[in-house]
Amino acid sequence: MRIDVKVRVIYGDTDAMGIVYHGNYLRWFEVGRTELFRALGIVYRDLEARGYYLPLTQSYCHYHAPARYDDVIVVETAIAEWGRASIRFNYIIWDEGKTKRLVEGFTHHAFTNAGGRVVRAPGEITTLIEGACERPEG
Amino acid sequence: MRIDVKVRVIYGDTDAMGIVYHGNYLRWFEVGRTELFRALGIVYRDLEARGYYLPLTQSYCHYHAPARYDDVIVVETAIAEWGRASIRFNYIIWDEGKTKRLVEGFTHHAFTNAGGRVVRAPGEITTLIEGACERPEG
Amino acid sequence: MRIDVKVRVIYGDTDAMGIVYHGNYLRWFEVGRTELFRALGIVYRDLEARGYYLPLTQSYCHYHAPARYDDVIVVETAIAEWGRASIRFNYIIWDEGKTKRLVEGFTHHAFTNAGGRVVRAPGEITTLIEGACERPEG
Amino acid sequence: MRIDVKVRVIYGDTDAMGIVYHGNYLRWFEVGRTELFRALGIVYRDLEARGYYLPLTQSYCHYHAPARYDDVIVVETAIAEWGRASIRFNYIIWDEGKTKRLVEGFTHHAFTNAGGRVVRAPGEITTLIEGACERPEG
Repeated sequence: MRIDVKVRVIYGDTDAMGIVYHGNYLRWFEVGRTELFRALGIVYRDLEARGYYLPLTQSYCHYHAPARYDDVIVVETAIAEWGRASIRFNYIIWDEGKTKRLVEGFTHHAFTNAGGRVVRAPGEITTLIEGACERPEG
Repeated sequence: MRIDVKVRVIYGDTDAMGIVYHGNYLRWFEVGRTELFRALGIVYRDLEARGYYLPLTQSYCHYHAPARYDDVIVVETAIAEWGRASIRFNYIIWDEGKTKRLVEGFTHHAFTNAGGRVVRAPGEITTLIEGACERPEG
Repeated sequence: MRIDVKVRVIYGDTDAMGIVYHGNYLRWFEVGRTELFRALGIVYRDLEARGYYLPLTQSYCHYHAPARYDDVIVVETAIAEWGRASIRFNYIIWDEGKTKRLVEGFTHHAFTNAGGRVVRAPGEITTLIEGACERPEG
Repeated sequence: MRIDVKVRVIYGDTDAMGIVYHGNYLRWFEVGRTELFRALGIVYRDLEARGYYLPLTQSYCHYHAPARYDDVIVVETAIAEWGRASIRFNYIIWDEGKTKRLVEGFTHHAFTNAGGRVVRAPGEITTLIEGACERPEG
């Protein structure tokens, strides 16, 4: 399962080179994975209310081409790996027509409790994520 | 009492117009008031640990001239008003030599508890702030 | 003429107080005025391509109540004043149901050329803005 | 050659999880490499004035432990690789006492002209960077 979210670039996202500041793609990765979870029926805010957190352990971006002010970009998100207490999302940031890959990347997250200790995800969450995962745990 | 803090503008602070994105001055206002408090012996983090918060109720910026990438700017901060459960800071953002005012502004804050209810500041905080305030409560 | 734009709050918009960092409302004000312009048939990016800029001269926010992570907020924008070489936008940030005002504010802008010199707006832009302005130049 | 830069975390850097928002470490990586260049006698702003740019092609962060509001962190930066038209910086974000690694990462950059075309770096820049590079081109 893959999900697309459209975002319009504002001035506040750009920098003096006239392009999107590279750090902002991580914000859009967040938008992508939150909406992917929502599409699966998982509201991240509710997970937290139940005491489960998904802090990042790694992030990676490969910048192919810049997005610019007022561009509409498409954030394509997939769950790439799932390991009971960890999850990896893959992202592609496209131009509006999805003809050009601007940025590709991933984020890796641990499943933790409020104290930051790694824990197993609740069973029904596991089921939902496994169903959506592109490369199931082998 | 007034305090100066120097900050260097990074790419991530600028926008495609080649200047600092206007919203970022509010970040530097935060730097200014935190360091003014620290100079008074008040560590805002400790205030929070004791259950006191200072959320913003208002902010205002007048943009005279832009700061640019790699500029060093000076954030000058003063306590302009103090009213037991509220405080107003005034700010001037200068160029490095303090010959040109780039931005002037203020922030107004309420003194609250963790639940957001307006409360009186602790006595010793009040004493420290009153000593530094440019326009004491009349 | 007033326009509403919906925005969902992400983690990157919030701060350790658990609420939206106050400086980020200025980003959403930008979203509001850009979409208001677009609804009038004015694409700000095209204005710039023709050599016209609208840098901020002032910004003001009154923070009534905080927005939180994953909230959908509504940015309501209107053109409040128009003076040939300047423009003022008013903003109300609402909760999703538009029952509660979270933030109210304004931004004031000058019409300039690329060199930062104040200039008159092109005639057809003036006509479009005057038609939308809530308080026409008297 | 390695350089350390101290930065204090502000509220605007944190998120509702009470820790620094992961995307902000990329801003501090920028601070680190700019000051490393400055220590070598290379002012990035001047490079751009001469028509040379260093856009990112990749970024990576490994998040070990979070920084929190009001923490002083140390950004340690080194030039890890240098290949005439590309450069890689390595970063370690430490706690104030440099006893604990919070984040480790790298950024990879291309040397380009204003049009985005990859070009060779000017000779005197190459000499300065080669002298500082931890793993010289083999």
